[in-house]
Amino acid sequence: MFQTFDPVSDRSFAGAHLPLLRAEMKKQNLDGFIIPHDDEYQNEYTPAYADRLMWASGFSGSAGSAIVLTDTAVIFTDGRYTLQVREQADGAFFDYVDVTETPPVDWLAKNARKGARIGYDPMVHSLAGRRRLAAAAARAGFELVATSENPVDIAWGADQPAKPMAPIKPHDIKFAGKAADEKRRDVAAAIDAAGADAALITSPPSVAWLLNVRGGDVSRAPMPLSRVIISKDGTATLFAEPAKIDNALPGFLGDDVDIRAESDVTAALEKLGSSGARIMIDPTAAPAHFASILEKAGAKLIEQADPCALPRAMKNATEIAGARAAHIRDGVVVTEFLHWLDTEAQSGDCDEITAAQKLESFRRQLTELRDISFDTISGAGANGASPHYRVSTETNATLERGGLYLVDSGGQYEDGTTDITRTVPIGEPTAEMRDRFTRVLKGHIALAVMRFPEGTTGHQLDAIARKPLWDAGLDYDHGTGHGVGSFLSVHEGPQRIAKAPNDQPLKPGMILSNEPGYYKAGAFGIRIENLIVVTTPQTPQDGERAMMDFETITLAPIHLSLVDPALLTDDERQWLNDYHARVSAVLKDKLPPALKDWFENATRAI
Amino acid sequence: MFQTFDPVSDRSFAGAHLPLLRAEMKKQNLDGFIIPHDDEYQNEYTPAYADRLMWASGFSGSAGSAIVLTDTAVIFTDGRYTLQVREQADGAFFDYVDVTETPPVDWLAKNARKGARIGYDPMVHSLAGRRRLAAAAARAGFELVATSENPVDIAWGADQPAKPMAPIKPHDIKFAGKAADEKRRDVAAAIDAAGADAALITSPPSVAWLLNVRGGDVSRAPMPLSRVIISKDGTATLFAEPAKIDNALPGFLGDDVDIRAESDVTAALEKLGSSGARIMIDPTAAPAHFASILEKAGAKLIEQADPCALPRAMKNATEIAGARAAHIRDGVVVTEFLHWLDTEAQSGDCDEITAAQKLESFRRQLTELRDISFDTISGAGANGASPHYRVSTETNATLERGGLYLVDSGGQYEDGTTDITRTVPIGEPTAEMRDRFTRVLKGHIALAVMRFPEGTTGHQLDAIARKPLWDAGLDYDHGTGHGVGSFLSVHEGPQRIAKAPNDQPLKPGMILSNEPGYYKAGAFGIRIENLIVVTTPQTPQDGERAMMDFETITLAPIHLSLVDPALLTDDERQWLNDYHARVSAVLKDKLPPALKDWFENATRAI
Repeated sequence: MFQTFDPVSDRSFAGAHLPLLRAEMKKQNLDGFIIPHDDEYQNEYTPAYADRLMWASGFSGSAGSAIVLTDTAVIFTDGRYTLQVREQADGAFFDYVDVTETPPVDWLAKNARKGARIGYDPMVHSLAGRRRLAAAAARAGFELVATSENPVDIAWGADQPAKPMAPIKPHDIKFAGKAADEKRRDVAAAIDAAGADAALITSPPSVAWLLNVRGGDVSRAPMPLSRVIISKDGTATLFAEPAKIDNALPGFLGDDVDIRAESDVTAALEKLGSSGARIMIDPTAAPAHFASILEKAGAKLIEQADPCALPRAMKNATEIAGARAAHIRDGVVVTEFLHWLDTEAQSGDCDEITAAQKLESFRRQLTELRDISFDTISGAGANGASPHYRVSTETNATLERGGLYLVDSGGQYEDGTTDITRTVPIGEPTAEMRDRFTRVLKGHIALAVMRFPEGTTGHQLDAIARKPLWDAGLDYDHGTGHGVGSFLSVHEGPQRIAKAPNDQPLKPGMILSNEPGYYKAGAFGIRIENLIVVTTPQTPQDGERAMMDFETITLAPIHLSLVDPALLTDDERQWLNDYHARVSAVLKDKLPPALKDWFENATRAI
Repeated sequence: MFQTFDPVSDRSFAGAHLPLLRAEMKKQNLDGFIIPHDDEYQNEYTPAYADRLMWASGFSGSAGSAIVLTDTAVIFTDGRYTLQVREQADGAFFDYVDVTETPPVDWLAKNARKGARIGYDPMVHSLAGRRRLAAAAARAGFELVATSENPVDIAWGADQPAKPMAPIKPHDIKFAGKAADEKRRDVAAAIDAAGADAALITSPPSVAWLLNVRGGDVSRAPMPLSRVIISKDGTATLFAEPAKIDNALPGFLGDDVDIRAESDVTAALEKLGSSGARIMIDPTAAPAHFASILEKAGAKLIEQADPCALPRAMKNATEIAGARAAHIRDGVVVTEFLHWLDTEAQSGDCDEITAAQKLESFRRQLTELRDISFDTISGAGANGASPHYRVSTETNATLERGGLYLVDSGGQYEDGTTDITRTVPIGEPTAEMRDRFTRVLKGHIALAVMRFPEGTTGHQLDAIARKPLWDAGLDYDHGTGHGVGSFLSVHEGPQRIAKAPNDQPLKPGMILSNEPGYYKAGAFGIRIENLIVVTTPQTPQDGERAMMDFETITLAPIHLSLVDPALLTDDERQWLNDYHARVSAVLKDKLPPALKDWFENATRAI
């Protein structure tokens, strides 16, 4: 599945669809209805049938929500989508609200009238999300009503796309590195230790990791939409649509994993509840509806983080070796693309879509490529200054001489998921661009070389990457690093390097991005992103602590025309030269011979 | 009030007092009783009558708690007190538990038998603390019983010291910088904005700040033990023992501040409750008992941080000017002491108590000194490796040649509170000591020169000060910076620079410590501590952010014999030289002439 540039969203959606929705709300006796972007699985990339927010509003961004009342409607987005939401969601029907200033619960607490019946679909709100809504309802005096059928789905009717039915396939042990029965045994021990009888796993990447399977229900992340209940004895039931199960799967999963239809999960939860079982559930991931079923039936909820999340994040040796291999493969094609940018694209006539398609054509040469890992961010000039820019035919800009081009992209390979950002000058960069780029590079290097003791969390390291920008009165409004899956989602928790608190210590084998940036509104964007792996703590010398490092696994040249060597310390210059020497040593024999001179220059010592 | 070196705790306390306590528990039909170190005011320094933990166990540390059951007893302390608790609390009567491994609530959840009646005094547990206890009780099935009379107080009987009755005195506007009626007006606006009718202020430093008064009920921090209820119209009632109120106070407080006996607070809360008032209360500070009274009477609790905490932390221009003046005054006497350490104490015959008394004798020369701001940490050799070491006649060590001496001390002046740590070599330091000291210095400098955007919190900056130690596989097990009061407690929230998350952005006028350290167990301790003030954000240039800096206000030489210049960057050496030039310029005319040559050398450029 490859890049599409024109989301099907349409500014006319709101005018056409809101009356249908309001008619259904009236039938259900609702004065309002909440439409989050989230689907039943808390996916980042949602299947088409679950794009309820887009159907209702026209807004196609990856995060947001709307509240539709009988006479007014409001749409909430964050700073990334300030412009896009105004283009896509018609202001004649929607008020725009910045979610960081006024979250939906606060808006409801202020704007819902006393006694109003505000509906929500308990399958698309987590247990924790519902608690926030319930607190707002108690504060403001409105009534929170769980719908049994989502009014959007009914109003959408026959036009709503079908649910995806991609087959669930084994993920080979040569990529997974650890057998599923071992994983089940370890997770079962964690369930037992928490005093629970079983755990409800609602998150598709956790299902995929636990059972060593992959799916194809959503683009960009090969997860099967499905659920698992795993018992403290290690036996499990996979709840997935029968159409996704081929004949070979039961044999692969083995005798200790039962397979049932996804709709059977309700009955299974009721049965567990009626036996008074203690069920581990992640309140931030599980649909509120499942918690209601369990509690109504008599289960005791043990609220804890998804027990698969941490072991999934801590890649084993096989997964790390696979990630290294995937990054070499990916590095070759990205480097070919960087060569194209440095030659043909220097004409000043290429546009963002052409460039993104060119990059994809290079990646598509690889038979190992299964998908790209997210929609490519291909931003020239001022478009590069939107950190999460998505090109469309309307915004498609030319890579003009004198500007910068920022490209953030990645691939899904069975042995690993990649995510890389490079910034390239078209023509001659200005002194300001070189200063800013070099500061971003200094921050990138500072994080790459960090040593830190066990127990360190991402919020402790974030400022290390910002300091060279802060020194110049500059900053960037996104996190510095996110977790990355292994042939799974390119955004993965629980670890994260950002300003906001994160209580998950960095652990050996975690893969994260290292991506400081700088964005000058209306002018240019800069970001340098490599993936890094947390190393195993070194055995401490007498009196020392067990310290961890990062290993950088992304391999592709960092554009030297944008580096001002005078701003680098000796250690920083040495890091850059060592990095390029490694890039050169690993990639040079894998590149087309015609690139030899260009590549030698691109990876030269400075 | 000055340094005492022998806490009156006694290993025999437990054997003598536990039977008395258990007899009283039996009378109250209790199977267990919880004794926190905390008093009714959540003070760090408790008045003698409230040293219930010490009476019951013999343990005199500043943090900890005990649980006494009918047949067993357990005492909880953190890593600072691992040794001390074993010396002071008799192991024949107490099991020792590390509070970070097993908090009291977890211990109770595991060890209290089902149905057991576990008592607690709701005046010495905060509302939030009681909620944690109640959750443990629900989990484990024991009964949590609020006592109406603390069993320790009854068992202690006539020997329990009387409550302190120090007079409440005006804090002059020339030190406070802002009139109390203005403060009340601003706090009242915050109460109104939160939808509350009034706020209950239970924290003595908040009472002191709000009304511009100071007290003398506890050593080291000039706070009056008392409470305030302030209404959204800005009128307030001070609840304090009549013996603390002299004839002048009512006139100073003015017509809008009523004065009543401290015991009247209960009736006042009942009256507010019966009118259905909405009362702002800080769940982490207010005694649980007050919340019960309010709720029982019909009040609606609005749980928010103490509305005085943030404005108290953001010192105004007068307070900052006062702090600068206090630090010059304090810097002179500390420098005189550093000269004494560099000369007479080099004999190798002085001991820790002599040194601490010498420092106090220098401070006592200042007529402006009102108290020291905490018990001086005077640690030679291996004793310096305990970050919170308190010298006693048993532990009193000699400042031996070849060792390091660490001294952490401060003064209370009406214009400001000081807190400074210096580390001094006795004889010739080793290369290891110089390496470690220089790394600590590099971390200290890195934090001192940080520029950071508005919204930055302490958890983002902490690692900046640790990096030079982390690079060498080293670390320190305490925070990097705490808030400091203005002629109030030397430890003050809500800001903090530490590894743990802290959601309070640093704000202009906040005073913090900058105190990285290094501790080699059994050998030596190093810490360099200056106080720093958050500056007003600079007006940003086009495209830049509003950035803040720190101003270092502590002035005293940093020992150059411990600095290895080869480990410093040019910028770091420049910072050190600039700092010493400032110390020299400000202090040289205030020091005794005999110190001239020594001082010139101590502040020389390197």
